[in-house]
Amino acid sequence: MSEVTIFGLGLMGLAIAKAYQKEGIPLTVWNRTIKKAEALAAENVAVAQSISDAIVASPVSIICVDDPNSVLTLFGQSQVEPLLDGRTIIQLSTCLPKQVREDQSWLAGRHAEFLYGAIHCAPQDLGTKDGNILISGPPSTYKPVEGLIGHLGGQIDYLGDDIAAASTLDLAWLSTRFGEFMGMLHAANLCQSEGIELQKFIAMFPDDARIQHHVGTIRDGTYDQRTATLSVWQASLELLKQQATDAGMDAEFPNHVGGLFEKAIKAGYGEEHVMALFKVLKGNEGTVD
Amino acid sequence: MSEVTIFGLGLMGLAIAKAYQKEGIPLTVWNRTIKKAEALAAENVAVAQSISDAIVASPVSIICVDDPNSVLTLFGQSQVEPLLDGRTIIQLSTCLPKQVREDQSWLAGRHAEFLYGAIHCAPQDLGTKDGNILISGPPSTYKPVEGLIGHLGGQIDYLGDDIAAASTLDLAWLSTRFGEFMGMLHAANLCQSEGIELQKFIAMFPDDARIQHHVGTIRDGTYDQRTATLSVWQASLELLKQQATDAGMDAEFPNHVGGLFEKAIKAGYGEEHVMALFKVLKGNEGTVD
Repeated sequence: MSEVTIFGLGLMGLAIAKAYQKEGIPLTVWNRTIKKAEALAAENVAVAQSISDAIVASPVSIICVDDPNSVLTLFGQSQVEPLLDGRTIIQLSTCLPKQVREDQSWLAGRHAEFLYGAIHCAPQDLGTKDGNILISGPPSTYKPVEGLIGHLGGQIDYLGDDIAAASTLDLAWLSTRFGEFMGMLHAANLCQSEGIELQKFIAMFPDDARIQHHVGTIRDGTYDQRTATLSVWQASLELLKQQATDAGMDAEFPNHVGGLFEKAIKAGYGEEHVMALFKVLKGNEGTVD
Repeated sequence: MSEVTIFGLGLMGLAIAKAYQKEGIPLTVWNRTIKKAEALAAENVAVAQSISDAIVASPVSIICVDDPNSVLTLFGQSQVEPLLDGRTIIQLSTCLPKQVREDQSWLAGRHAEFLYGAIHCAPQDLGTKDGNILISGPPSTYKPVEGLIGHLGGQIDYLGDDIAAASTLDLAWLSTRFGEFMGMLHAANLCQSEGIELQKFIAMFPDDARIQHHVGTIRDGTYDQRTATLSVWQASLELLKQQATDAGMDAEFPNHVGGLFEKAIKAGYGEEHVMALFKVLKGNEGTVD
């Protein structure tokens, strides 16, 4: 018997598993391609051969895969469903509020507890003081696993009963980032159109690390940095657009931002830094720095 | 003979005049409606009866009126033009880069020096440590008036030779503000659409005074605050749009933001807080808080 099972050993799932391993917490891991899991086998890490084995190994399972529908994908099989009874599932894969609510309801029908968390930091921050996760769900579900979750980082923000709170606030945070991008991009273009050095603009915001980094990237043309790519941001933007559709809300802003991203992807900038959007504004899709 | 002449006694012009008066600097004031000027008359404040009198009263003139074309409006008359010779004109009225460059060229033809400054603070901050002005123009023009300008605030940012730098960076700063607005508005709408309290969103940004204030305004529905109104912000946005046209640059972002502002003005929110834009997103133009 282990304390926790991790479903999925991508960048984030692996970082979660390692954080627990470091703390000496007995864990079970499962991955679609079992070799990735076997590479992690160690004194306190068991490798599950099947989803059923993985579930029954621990009272708590954490999912962290690249599939918003993963609760059903993993557990929606007749031989697996009955095993969920009495267990706690923590979904850390990126899901929209609607999905999270559906999953809670589906799991409740199988007598399983559910929490949803949005990871708000880089994989290497998990298990350190900078590890930041927004998490929500019933307090009676959260309390017993608070210590377990706490091993994942120094900044665990529990947002209360509403299961969709973490997903919603994650999207809301994303919305502020896209707003910043649009404002900065136009500002940078404006400076260049009047022949004013971007450094003068950057210098107006000595305390704003994001303007320093992003407009600095435009200034230096260093669009080849290894960081969250333009495509990764576009995937997040698609979530914002989908949520607006799901909730029947005004979608003009994400659609407007989406138009710019689509041009950038079409121009072949998907694997570059998100500020490569600037090259679309400048209309120089043909020129590569 | 006074040290400086102030053209225009609106909110900002008056604050400038008072800052000099407080420092005991002999000044001359001129205003279109002379009564406003006469109300300021004091031991070290002379009231000019005409534009010609106002110019010849001081080696330096500061313009602060609600007219981007004010250099020509005030000085473009045959009896005034010759009086400009050898004087320094500091334009603190809001002007676009193109206008500022034209004014510099026109004044050079009259052998007058020129500086352009963008006031980046509230009127009550002028003459205090919080007074913030971005200013640009030739160093040989700036140096002799550096002390005089310094009386207007603790944060005078001299941006160098390019006369359009201050105007451009002021617009670029505005662009970042509009980006913030759009991101916050969608974020707030998103939270409400999922039934998540705005306070939870605000709490994610403990160090961001602007999110605290703006989303706090949406949370509280206090759109009747006495502050820069939605109409004032729209006027700034029109400048961004005009500059984009002047410079032949991509205007999609200011046009997108402009669409939202136009709906808000049409719905009668012009004199409310800029966050009344939120009511347009919610599609409840008919409901007044």
